Amino acid sequence: MEQNRVVARPIRCKAAVCKAAGEPLEMEEVEVAPPRAHEVRIKVVCTSPCHSDITFWRMKDGPNMFPCILGHEAVGVVESVGEHVQEVAVGDTVVPVFLAQCGECADCRSARSNLCSALPTRPGMPRDGTTRFSLAATGEPVHNFLSVSSFAEYTVVDVAHVVRVGNALPPEKACLLSCGVATGVGAAWKVAAVEPGSTVAVFGLGAVGLAVAQGSKMRGATRIIGIDLNPDKFETGKKLGITDFVNPNGIGEQTVSEVIKEMTGGAGADYCFECIGSVSVMAEAFRSSRMGWGKTVVLGVDGSAAPVSIPSLDIMRGRSVVGSYLGGIKPKDDIPVLARKCLDKELELDEFITHQMGFDEINRALDLLAQGKCLRCIIWMEMDGGAVEDGA
Amino acid sequence: MEQNRVVARPIRCKAAVCKAAGEPLEMEEVEVAPPRAHEVRIKVVCTSPCHSDITFWRMKDGPNMFPCILGHEAVGVVESVGEHVQEVAVGDTVVPVFLAQCGECADCRSARSNLCSALPTRPGMPRDGTTRFSLAATGEPVHNFLSVSSFAEYTVVDVAHVVRVGNALPPEKACLLSCGVATGVGAAWKVAAVEPGSTVAVFGLGAVGLAVAQGSKMRGATRIIGIDLNPDKFETGKKLGITDFVNPNGIGEQTVSEVIKEMTGGAGADYCFECIGSVSVMAEAFRSSRMGWGKTVVLGVDGSAAPVSIPSLDIMRGRSVVGSYLGGIKPKDDIPVLARKCLDKELELDEFITHQMGFDEINRALDLLAQGKCLRCIIWMEMDGGAVEDGA
Repeated sequence: MEQNRVVARPIRCKAAVCKAAGEPLEMEEVEVAPPRAHEVRIKVVCTSPCHSDITFWRMKDGPNMFPCILGHEAVGVVESVGEHVQEVAVGDTVVPVFLAQCGECADCRSARSNLCSALPTRPGMPRDGTTRFSLAATGEPVHNFLSVSSFAEYTVVDVAHVVRVGNALPPEKACLLSCGVATGVGAAWKVAAVEPGSTVAVFGLGAVGLAVAQGSKMRGATRIIGIDLNPDKFETGKKLGITDFVNPNGIGEQTVSEVIKEMTGGAGADYCFECIGSVSVMAEAFRSSRMGWGKTVVLGVDGSAAPVSIPSLDIMRGRSVVGSYLGGIKPKDDIPVLARKCLDKELELDEFITHQMGFDEINRALDLLAQGKCLRCIIWMEMDGGAVEDGA
Repeated sequence: MEQNRVVARPIRCKAAVCKAAGEPLEMEEVEVAPPRAHEVRIKVVCTSPCHSDITFWRMKDGPNMFPCILGHEAVGVVESVGEHVQEVAVGDTVVPVFLAQCGECADCRSARSNLCSALPTRPGMPRDGTTRFSLAATGEPVHNFLSVSSFAEYTVVDVAHVVRVGNALPPEKACLLSCGVATGVGAAWKVAAVEPGSTVAVFGLGAVGLAVAQGSKMRGATRIIGIDLNPDKFETGKKLGITDFVNPNGIGEQTVSEVIKEMTGGAGADYCFECIGSVSVMAEAFRSSRMGWGKTVVLGVDGSAAPVSIPSLDIMRGRSVVGSYLGGIKPKDDIPVLARKCLDKELELDEFITHQMGFDEINRALDLLAQGKCLRCIIWMEMDGGAVEDGA
């Protein structure tokens, strides 16, 4: 049953190593150990920085230990597999995902949860907390990040964290399904279950917010209101389904929730999505939601870990607040469905890819994302560093 | 089509009039005007004080204007009907409800809302804001309360606020379905949609909390944890489905959420219900809910209107908070279903009725409820004030 397994050896390759909070990543030669039991070594084809990479990169007191290899949005090809790996074989195209799906725990067996309780998110490899990376020059261990560490030419990922996606979908699109876009689309599809004909308000039009718009459109929402301080976002937004735009700087004394209520005949939006990570925006999103059935979905993580403050009388009026990781997506069940929807053009990803570049330019990609100048920058591991193609 | 309508005249009868915040109600002779269009005059059979009566009775700056007639949990018989009333006829047994169901607005047509938007809760009669009550001696108007005003021998209620319940169910049980018990059972049934085999935590074991326990048992919950400072509540609780009891005063340094997590193998409860109206308890209920799918249902109204504070990182972990009025019950659709479940013994109401007395003793009933000494006190309008039967 394990015919495809050969005894794998360590691989030396390039990786972008994060050595200190907020400092540029350093391109280093690392040694990538062979996959152990239940693990898969992947040759990364492309990866794209996501906001959580930036958050952890900058975090001085976080769970991330230096040196480490960041990156968790990627697509690659299985290079070798460890013992007990039956689900994928060498040569398979896979998407690694920061959330596991063991398939057997109470959460994986329930349709209501996507938080595998057998392999919860933790530092290091999911089953033993160790790492497969070390610096080639010194042997110093290099820490794993979010069970993926895709800012490297090769990485080792637990089989519970990989999803087979086939070759029909171009890699740069498969890559987007492994975190940010899946989170936004999933929030509209799995968490909110947006109903046809609904009005949706999306707070924050970064990649996740625009993916919420795409997901809401896919679910048949007829009015999708985008809220962002940057008016340029509306142009891209329109292509992805946004029908109305509110700039909080352009509404005078009014609050955003007052404007949204005006726009909806006094009612408010059926669904509100917070895609920024600000507790004050979470509260404003809540206030913008309709009495009777308004649902507020929280997607952004507030870095300060401040509490969300919700008026207790208002929640009584049939409103709800719900949060999720990865938009409620169960990786192995739902990412293949999203891939299918991309092939069928039901889901449109072209607009998300604003930049493409080679691995050597990864610090520029991080800067672009941190400055809000790109939606998604695809980093090709085998593209020559000089051959940059900017979509923006 | 309006054969049952005769020209109705004003009726003079007894009512318990609230003249100042927190002062004992005064038994007065009032004049009850005939029902206008879309209205029904009801001879009240019995009524039971509910905590919202106490809240508004004590409220000095609230929307309630004195003098007024409180009371909103009742059952009665239709005495006369106004123009355009087709749905009920003279002699029908009906339950008046503080929420309307017009049947035609967007909310009434949706399965997701029970907050009729055509006739939202407002002071006075729903369609014109006036009142049908006046003091017989002086003609001074007496204000309506929550569209019901059942602390009177006769009251006038909009037809959108009445539900036909038939005669099979004894009046004292039908009465309970018009607010508190329906709220608790509905929260488990309609809002949380408790799944069989679930673990439920109920914060506060008053009538609403105990009704949540009954509703959860009806839905097949296997473990129902009751939390209350009064250990006596556990005895009644056991009869209504509570399987485990936590007294916050008896757990030393631990928090309630820590104890509930211990009791559930570290996971937390699948559903948590806040039935007290304290924002700090709302937050503790949230912390007691399970990652992945834990749902916190807010039933209590915090009198201070303070905001609920929810850790923003915790809500990301697949948890949700949802509120509702009347447990998500659509009066005309769902109260008849609950009545059927009572007749079928699927829903057990006997334990809720701890006291029964005559109308003249209404102030004693309010005191008992305010002091937490009764669950429900049925006040019979035609029982002699002296013939008191205490179940407690």
